Amino acid sequence: MMERAAILSTGDELTTGRIVDTNASWLADRLNQIGMDLVTVITVGDYPERLEWAWRTAMEMADVVISTGGLGPTADDLTTETVARLAGQRLVRDEATVEHIRHIFTASGRQMPENNVRQALFPEGAVIISNPIGTAPGFRLAVPQKSHVCHLIVLPGVPREMILMMQETVIPWLSENRGHDEVLVNRTFQTYGISESGLDALVAGVISPEEARVGFRASFPQISLRLAVRGKPGEAERKLEELSSRVRDKVGAYIYAEGDVTMEEVVGKLLTEHNLTLAVAESCTGGLIGHRLTNIPGSSRYLLADVVSYSNEAKIKLLGVSEETLRSHGAVSEQCVTEMAAGARKLAGADIAIATSGIAGPDGGTAEKPVGTVCFALNAPGVSIARTHRMRGARDWVKLGASQLALDWIRRHVLGLPLSEPARR
Amino acid sequence: MMERAAILSTGDELTTGRIVDTNASWLADRLNQIGMDLVTVITVGDYPERLEWAWRTAMEMADVVISTGGLGPTADDLTTETVARLAGQRLVRDEATVEHIRHIFTASGRQMPENNVRQALFPEGAVIISNPIGTAPGFRLAVPQKSHVCHLIVLPGVPREMILMMQETVIPWLSENRGHDEVLVNRTFQTYGISESGLDALVAGVISPEEARVGFRASFPQISLRLAVRGKPGEAERKLEELSSRVRDKVGAYIYAEGDVTMEEVVGKLLTEHNLTLAVAESCTGGLIGHRLTNIPGSSRYLLADVVSYSNEAKIKLLGVSEETLRSHGAVSEQCVTEMAAGARKLAGADIAIATSGIAGPDGGTAEKPVGTVCFALNAPGVSIARTHRMRGARDWVKLGASQLALDWIRRHVLGLPLSEPARR
Repeated sequence: MMERAAILSTGDELTTGRIVDTNASWLADRLNQIGMDLVTVITVGDYPERLEWAWRTAMEMADVVISTGGLGPTADDLTTETVARLAGQRLVRDEATVEHIRHIFTASGRQMPENNVRQALFPEGAVIISNPIGTAPGFRLAVPQKSHVCHLIVLPGVPREMILMMQETVIPWLSENRGHDEVLVNRTFQTYGISESGLDALVAGVISPEEARVGFRASFPQISLRLAVRGKPGEAERKLEELSSRVRDKVGAYIYAEGDVTMEEVVGKLLTEHNLTLAVAESCTGGLIGHRLTNIPGSSRYLLADVVSYSNEAKIKLLGVSEETLRSHGAVSEQCVTEMAAGARKLAGADIAIATSGIAGPDGGTAEKPVGTVCFALNAPGVSIARTHRMRGARDWVKLGASQLALDWIRRHVLGLPLSEPARR
Repeated sequence: MMERAAILSTGDELTTGRIVDTNASWLADRLNQIGMDLVTVITVGDYPERLEWAWRTAMEMADVVISTGGLGPTADDLTTETVARLAGQRLVRDEATVEHIRHIFTASGRQMPENNVRQALFPEGAVIISNPIGTAPGFRLAVPQKSHVCHLIVLPGVPREMILMMQETVIPWLSENRGHDEVLVNRTFQTYGISESGLDALVAGVISPEEARVGFRASFPQISLRLAVRGKPGEAERKLEELSSRVRDKVGAYIYAEGDVTMEEVVGKLLTEHNLTLAVAESCTGGLIGHRLTNIPGSSRYLLADVVSYSNEAKIKLLGVSEETLRSHGAVSEQCVTEMAAGARKLAGADIAIATSGIAGPDGGTAEKPVGTVCFALNAPGVSIARTHRMRGARDWVKLGASQLALDWIRRHVLGLPLSEPARR
């Protein structure tokens, strides 16, 4: 029975505050989704005795210990050694892994440094967890404790490698071998235009704590709501469907997707389905709208061009904004974004164009147009809409928040929904 | 003597992955700055027995334990009770705090709910840490252990409250009372164009483990190296300078900055200092170069325009790439990026232009031009250079890696350094 989990996050970069431990939070979320109880997260730096203490402690407390970090090729990477010592196993070299690592180096025309061979050492009896995109594979190993068998799952600290290995190998294995007769099923709703506490208040009215665990996660600019229902197979799924309907009835106006889907994926899917093309004209968002859209494979089907006209001259020369508009209304004005959107659509020959211009800060704000003021425009055949919103937060949040609103406008336009009133200030 | 620190992060929102623990990372950074050694971070949910275990463990291991969370007014806020029990102290009510909380409520026209009085209870002997912006004050309490006296520092979990209380009260107190005659000084070097293991091998040759702690952090596309030296004030700084010189001598060619500085900051600073302007033409990077550049406040001084010409038509119409070039060489060719860069520089009237075109994947690769193939061009008065590189990884890494190389080219051009040979594939 695997019920209790512990996470070990290792590395000096964590204990000296150089990075935020997003791995632990991602893992905690996924363990929660499959119904495991995360007893503790223990973080230690790259010191042999601290690592050993952390491993011993976690192994005592949990049925499954997931560790990230310390699998690199350098001398401060101590995880494999520590685990082997605690498990009482010697290290053996896996030749297939040596070949895999050598192949990664030779494929890019480099020679494998000898110390990379360290990454092919595993405790005897370990099951290797392959790493399709990096040099360091992970492994799992069952280690008997006094009262239980503890399953150690050892993964690299690089988030994208860790995530892929969890998704492809570890989560399926855990789900299959947990030995639990109840299932935990869940559904995520992605929302926009409402605060976390606003969502909470609305949903609390239609779902009681006994029916489901309701969780919120605000990872700006996305706010998601998750329902998790535990129960017998079949029953739990039916209950989840019923509760999902209640959520849709209550907060459906704010839901832009269900599942782990980003706003740019939703927009890309809609443009593809409707066979529409897009042009973007960005000022304060500085390329972020284009960047987010082009993170989606296949975006070249609908994104024709994105003109980041950061200077006034670029707005005039590239997008045809009139000097008179800039003189009388300024670059951060509904007049200016209206002309930017019209110019971008014409220039690219696109079906839809979206434009942003604003004051991202920290400088440049005035009493009339404080930092965070952003003007948006959408242009399409017979449509030309411009509105001013006030985004909150520092420079990066103003950019992110504005990019989200712009993408939501495209979504709403394609779906024939009204463009949002000033909402997320 | 206060040398060793531990952080306790408490709350179900952490163990179920609903939020990322930014508090721990902020605290770790500040503790590191004042030279304290963070032995561990322990995270547990709101369960009495887990909290008690976490506190006991932290108190054994550290001279100073800083806890965040669990000071709210509701039943699942257990921190104060737990601490009082472990310290063997009864809870006493602080009338000044009751008044402070009542005042916060009446100031906003509300009545204080009775359960908020819980926030005015403290273990006997505790020194209250005032919270200027929230209802929950914190406190500190010295608790004798077998081998040492442990100082407990209890703070709320709301980041802005916790940070203010640390800055105004806790850090000054720690700095004054640490009673330590050694300091920990450190320096970070940002590198590009060399692997983590390559760096390690070079640096290991000139710095012994006894002289300094050498740490690496690969957060694609940045690889940083950090030296940390402990010693007497004055001596430690001198030693760090000496070791830094050795690092610069050995790997200086790969160092693009010292300190916590990104490539885009370095580029922005150089362009500003040299009074140069920049135009960007992006295809496969899709706006990411512009996005990164515009993350830096003041980037409007040097970034004139970024044309994301995702379609062939946009390359022709916006940047003046010739149809003949696209027909005979394709969009992913050195000919095409050369024309893109020249077109962007002319269009924007900039001093320097950089262009990218490549195959970000997962589709679109061919035998001749596999996924990851990216062409780069730089155009400046009397300069027109184009080269083809092969970036590794999935779509987002190809974009990130290509944006880093493009930014590095701008840096190298401004500094008069040779543009990199195909390096980070």
